[in-house]
Amino acid sequence: VGKPKFQSERLFEVAPPGVSTGLAWTSMGGATLYIESIKTDSTKPGFRTTGQMGDVMKESSEISFSYAKSDLLRRSPSNEFFEKANLHMHIPEGATPKDGPSAGVTMVTSMLSLALGERVSDNLAMTGELTLTGVVLPVGGIREKITAAKRSGVTKVILPKLNEKDWDELPDFIREGISVHFCENYDQVFDLAFPNISSEYRKKDQQPIAASA
Amino acid sequence: VGKPKFQSERLFEVAPPGVSTGLAWTSMGGATLYIESIKTDSTKPGFRTTGQMGDVMKESSEISFSYAKSDLLRRSPSNEFFEKANLHMHIPEGATPKDGPSAGVTMVTSMLSLALGERVSDNLAMTGELTLTGVVLPVGGIREKITAAKRSGVTKVILPKLNEKDWDELPDFIREGISVHFCENYDQVFDLAFPNISSEYRKKDQQPIAASA
Amino acid sequence: VGKPKFQSERLFEVAPPGVSTGLAWTSMGGATLYIESIKTDSTKPGFRTTGQMGDVMKESSEISFSYAKSDLLRRSPSNEFFEKANLHMHIPEGATPKDGPSAGVTMVTSMLSLALGERVSDNLAMTGELTLTGVVLPVGGIREKITAAKRSGVTKVILPKLNEKDWDELPDFIREGISVHFCENYDQVFDLAFPNISSEYRKKDQQPIAASA
Repeated sequence: VGKPKFQSERLFEVAPPGVSTGLAWTSMGGATLYIESIKTDSTKPGFRTTGQMGDVMKESSEISFSYAKSDLLRRSPSNEFFEKANLHMHIPEGATPKDGPSAGVTMVTSMLSLALGERVSDNLAMTGELTLTGVVLPVGGIREKITAAKRSGVTKVILPKLNEKDWDELPDFIREGISVHFCENYDQVFDLAFPNISSEYRKKDQQPIAASA
Repeated sequence: VGKPKFQSERLFEVAPPGVSTGLAWTSMGGATLYIESIKTDSTKPGFRTTGQMGDVMKESSEISFSYAKSDLLRRSPSNEFFEKANLHMHIPEGATPKDGPSAGVTMVTSMLSLALGERVSDNLAMTGELTLTGVVLPVGGIREKITAAKRSGVTKVILPKLNEKDWDELPDFIREGISVHFCENYDQVFDLAFPNISSEYRKKDQQPIAASA
Repeated sequence: VGKPKFQSERLFEVAPPGVSTGLAWTSMGGATLYIESIKTDSTKPGFRTTGQMGDVMKESSEISFSYAKSDLLRRSPSNEFFEKANLHMHIPEGATPKDGPSAGVTMVTSMLSLALGERVSDNLAMTGELTLTGVVLPVGGIREKITAAKRSGVTKVILPKLNEKDWDELPDFIREGISVHFCENYDQVFDLAFPNISSEYRKKDQQPIAASA
């Protein structure tokens, strides 16, 4: 009552480490969605979420947490962040029910951004289901999501490779102003989300966890 | 039956540290609402709430607790209050069901007031959803809330910046007697809530967790 | 909406250790299904699943975890993987409810693949209920499963011995291009799933846990 389902306004001029931008799809259209992760404790490791998440999204957050841990272990074996930190991940707005698996890549990016102390690339939004070994699966609502992204000032969007056909079918006036990147696995998302990160974390010489088809 | 939904009477002449004043919006109109936090134990850290809170408000209290911990850690790294204290937060009246995310800033203020041993500024009420990184989101019922605030002798009100248009649309006779402050992030709320606090806690030289748009 | 129940596309060119390929049977036909296991922690042993599993499938995952532990203990008494690793097993896609016991052999294979660091044989898919002592029980939907396997580029399929009659009844054009293997117990599955593994793990001189009828 009196309040829209999702704010279309931009919440951050410069988002701090731990914040990533996702794209949601509701019965009322697309929406930009922020995912926030903070560390609340350094001695009791743990993980907890808020944001009125449904069952599928809760599982998606567990998958993302497990993947983020295994991914950081691979990139930086000496990094003890997840062994010590108590993590809280929230998706505003608090009163809006959310569900579905399509924020997987965005959740992992939020957690790795916090763990690495590295801000996510400006004006970048992403959507994609993630499997436990890092494969990026396709999602719905591409047209609505791109429209919402533009409304929030987003200029770069990461989509699953398997959604390439949906992008191709969009009219030019919707695609205009968005630079799109298609990803098959999370390693490709990582490189786009953290373009300035120290090369030691890139592991270009190493195989991705999942070598997608 | 026989008892109004919320007491419009003022409960405290001078509220102790740990008490903040919020503004609620019900189907029966606006109401002043107190949030109380006390420490019940110094050896077993924990957090618990009472006050017939609904699911969204319970999540909001978790968000507020996490934010208060990370905020205190930033302002005063040596402060061990939350590592040791068992916190109990209550919203009277105990029999009145409450829900929604709009007490977020008020809850954090209550907890930080207790942790810092600093009373909240007199005659100040506030309303606003808080995200996990400290962004203040807009809320509903501005007209009803301002009306209730005045009825309780409140003279200063903190509103979310994104509610500025709602304030501007209020008739003069409602706005009269209220000094209003619009906030984008919790750091701005903090400075208004604790005007006399030692400057070491202000961290004016430091970036807020969230630099809002 | 806008997304098929299961992707028929192949997700992995070369799947990493921890990933096995199963065959599911839904009201909409057969589907290839991947089971992913990863290690999220090396100090706090545990086991957890995601993937919208129903009650029977959750129990099946517990049976599989117990069997995998006892099987590894028998094959390699000095291997401490399961004593130290916190395991997370997921079945994409995250939003699709799944149930039934027929992924038992596939789950065990995923876990042993991770524990041994050995990739599962290429282009191999399997289906079969597993008992706690390693007997492979028959499953439904053979025709639909074989059709789905071929659509995903699978060339080798493991079926329960007790499903041999169902295979024999399939028309030639469905059986064409698939090399089928019938198994009575998990030891036979193991040898097919890991054809290149070091012979020390084979225990050819040893009796299988279950000597099937």
